[in-house]
Amino acid sequence: MSDMLKPSRRAFLRGSAAAAAGLTAAGAARANGPDPLITEVQEWATVFGDGVDATPYGLPIQYESDVVRRNVEWLTADTTSSINFTPIHALDGTITPQGCAFERHHSGAIELRKEDYRLMINGLVDTPLVFSYADLERFPRENHVYFCECAANTGMEWAGAQLNGAQFTHGMIHNMEYTGVSLRTLLNEAGLEAAGDLADKWVYVEGADASSNGRSIPMDKALDDVLVAFKANGEALRKEHGYPVRLVVPGWEGNMWVKWLRRIEVTANAVESREETSKYTDTLADGTSRKWTWVMDAKSVITSPSPQSPITHGAGPLVITGLAWSGHGAITRVDVSKDGGKTWETARLAKPGEKMALTRFYLDTEWNGEEMLLQSRAIDETGYVQPTKAQLREVRGENSIYHNNCIQTWHVMPNGEAENVEVS
Amino acid sequence: MSDMLKPSRRAFLRGSAAAAAGLTAAGAARANGPDPLITEVQEWATVFGDGVDATPYGLPIQYESDVVRRNVEWLTADTTSSINFTPIHALDGTITPQGCAFERHHSGAIELRKEDYRLMINGLVDTPLVFSYADLERFPRENHVYFCECAANTGMEWAGAQLNGAQFTHGMIHNMEYTGVSLRTLLNEAGLEAAGDLADKWVYVEGADASSNGRSIPMDKALDDVLVAFKANGEALRKEHGYPVRLVVPGWEGNMWVKWLRRIEVTANAVESREETSKYTDTLADGTSRKWTWVMDAKSVITSPSPQSPITHGAGPLVITGLAWSGHGAITRVDVSKDGGKTWETARLAKPGEKMALTRFYLDTEWNGEEMLLQSRAIDETGYVQPTKAQLREVRGENSIYHNNCIQTWHVMPNGEAENVEVS
Repeated sequence: MSDMLKPSRRAFLRGSAAAAAGLTAAGAARANGPDPLITEVQEWATVFGDGVDATPYGLPIQYESDVVRRNVEWLTADTTSSINFTPIHALDGTITPQGCAFERHHSGAIELRKEDYRLMINGLVDTPLVFSYADLERFPRENHVYFCECAANTGMEWAGAQLNGAQFTHGMIHNMEYTGVSLRTLLNEAGLEAAGDLADKWVYVEGADASSNGRSIPMDKALDDVLVAFKANGEALRKEHGYPVRLVVPGWEGNMWVKWLRRIEVTANAVESREETSKYTDTLADGTSRKWTWVMDAKSVITSPSPQSPITHGAGPLVITGLAWSGHGAITRVDVSKDGGKTWETARLAKPGEKMALTRFYLDTEWNGEEMLLQSRAIDETGYVQPTKAQLREVRGENSIYHNNCIQTWHVMPNGEAENVEVS
Repeated sequence: MSDMLKPSRRAFLRGSAAAAAGLTAAGAARANGPDPLITEVQEWATVFGDGVDATPYGLPIQYESDVVRRNVEWLTADTTSSINFTPIHALDGTITPQGCAFERHHSGAIELRKEDYRLMINGLVDTPLVFSYADLERFPRENHVYFCECAANTGMEWAGAQLNGAQFTHGMIHNMEYTGVSLRTLLNEAGLEAAGDLADKWVYVEGADASSNGRSIPMDKALDDVLVAFKANGEALRKEHGYPVRLVVPGWEGNMWVKWLRRIEVTANAVESREETSKYTDTLADGTSRKWTWVMDAKSVITSPSPQSPITHGAGPLVITGLAWSGHGAITRVDVSKDGGKTWETARLAKPGEKMALTRFYLDTEWNGEEMLLQSRAIDETGYVQPTKAQLREVRGENSIYHNNCIQTWHVMPNGEAENVEVS
């Protein structure tokens, strides 16, 4: 028998959960006498539910119909070149189900059958190759959980506190277990002798959709941890995530994770495509632009409480939770502040941080029922500390859209509701 | 620049993937000249796809409509007390999406709103308590990935090779990231002083559905790693997985993972309920029955190639893959045999095994195009080696249904098709 057979006696919530001697009722019903949900036979215990043939592929229960991806109508001119947001305010843990993982398309989500799929590797390779989907399945596979964050995540917040909800301020992110073939394996199959010195070479990756979304990736990253992936969370990629094959570029901005991947060209120089020149660059205060800003810096957000996930109880035990991540490696610490950054407490990480994957943090605390200015700040294995918005503006000015990894503030009011605010 | 910039030159599949000099075609089209999918503008590159408002909650693409849960009609009299099977033959990685994770119900999947949910803790506790769902959200949470396997998984195979497909022989299993409150925390909240010596005490856990599925769990397990869970893979439990709250009993048979959990009673003795006496026990050759067979022993299965996932190419590179797991801890090694267990090769684990979670293994091999008797055997951290069917029958006879963890054999034929066979 273990030490666990000597439990601690900390009475945590007894004042809140009903003492059931004589089956006193719990929750809202308590004030009105015995809880009929306890003292009477419950309706759902008197009927048969659905059989196992009811849902060959299931969806969330009707009561969770608000936990869905949402887009913001004013953000783009057309929904085929737009984005929607993961409902991170309502999720817990770290895995994002594909069905509610954010999407970003440049010309809509296309349908491409495996039989029609081709992947070409050309350019400075010994033997240009074309792979069918069945060919890809014959190479050694890897599995990794990685986050994918759009460079524009939180971008609307540069100018001030604009969007009222963690889903909208930070929901351009998802975290899935990918299965695929290392890009290194496929490049080696084509042969890189012809490329000469690899240190100054690039690969250009391109999608099969009408936008031909294409990005240049330096060779050292291409030969490091990039995956040509065909499964996410165990099953085939969904249509909106690039079925049947997408690129996975761990820690780097989502636009480089090319969907419906059709071509990989080894090049002597970066292509300087539209998506890496006029887009996915940031204009600084002096008029110059930052480009090749591939890596997503350490960042975090409190998902609950937050504007879409208010506190619904009074003072007492409160679970504050959120997500942290870094494109530079593992999260090592997350701090939480209740007073807008004046004082900090170190949160509990649900698990040790993993490289380029979401980390869930919790602060199990006592709420005094008064207002809070809730913030979180992430620290990664390089020692980098997530900056304040003021610190970020100081070096980048106010014209940026992409790569806003600043500390987010939620103003929680005594009634438990929260709003997006900016603190000076 | 890293060592990875000096890639190896192993030509792996070049004989199979088309050399694209002059854009020679790939795959099936190759024999008939240039591949129109490469040389002409592809249809899907000429149209807009779906906008981001098309699927607030997405489902798999239509081309994957065969990757679904399936039930076996002759197995049970009614689908409300039955089971369906995870399509493990078509999945990769380790996470099982909730939408295709196997279900087992005793009186169907009920719909129970969070607002109507109550969890009672009673019996030998200091203060009987009733928790609402909102109460549970105020306790510290944990996240863990665990497999859930029905004790009857592979049960139909005792008598011989019966079901033709890994989905049906081994698909009563799923593997998800659960978020919930430790049962220990809730028991401590009610207080266990009244229970006296905990070493001989039990908890009885019971579901809210009409079947009142209930099981006895010894106190040391209850205080160890059992979770009262409300999320799986980040989102709310699906209706068929016990929304809003189910029990998670790591490594132990699925029937104990009570869904729609409504009551936890601390008892002096095991309740000896229907589900732990007339069911979920096994009659041995001498007429006595094994009971309290809670832990799922180490087990594995090759998911591809398999009857539902035949080899569709000729001789040459072949990826053999499957799943391994153990209720006693982490998987440390998986061996694969191509000759029915005469010789073994050690497979590659995608990641180091994790306690009570599925482990994905791969054998990257060359197929000679001849028939194979494919087997896998799992070894866990206790040193236990998955047994053959003959070894299992020797100690348990042939009347058992539950806890069949024997080595599975697939007969792969020269045409790539596979069938479920028994080897002596």
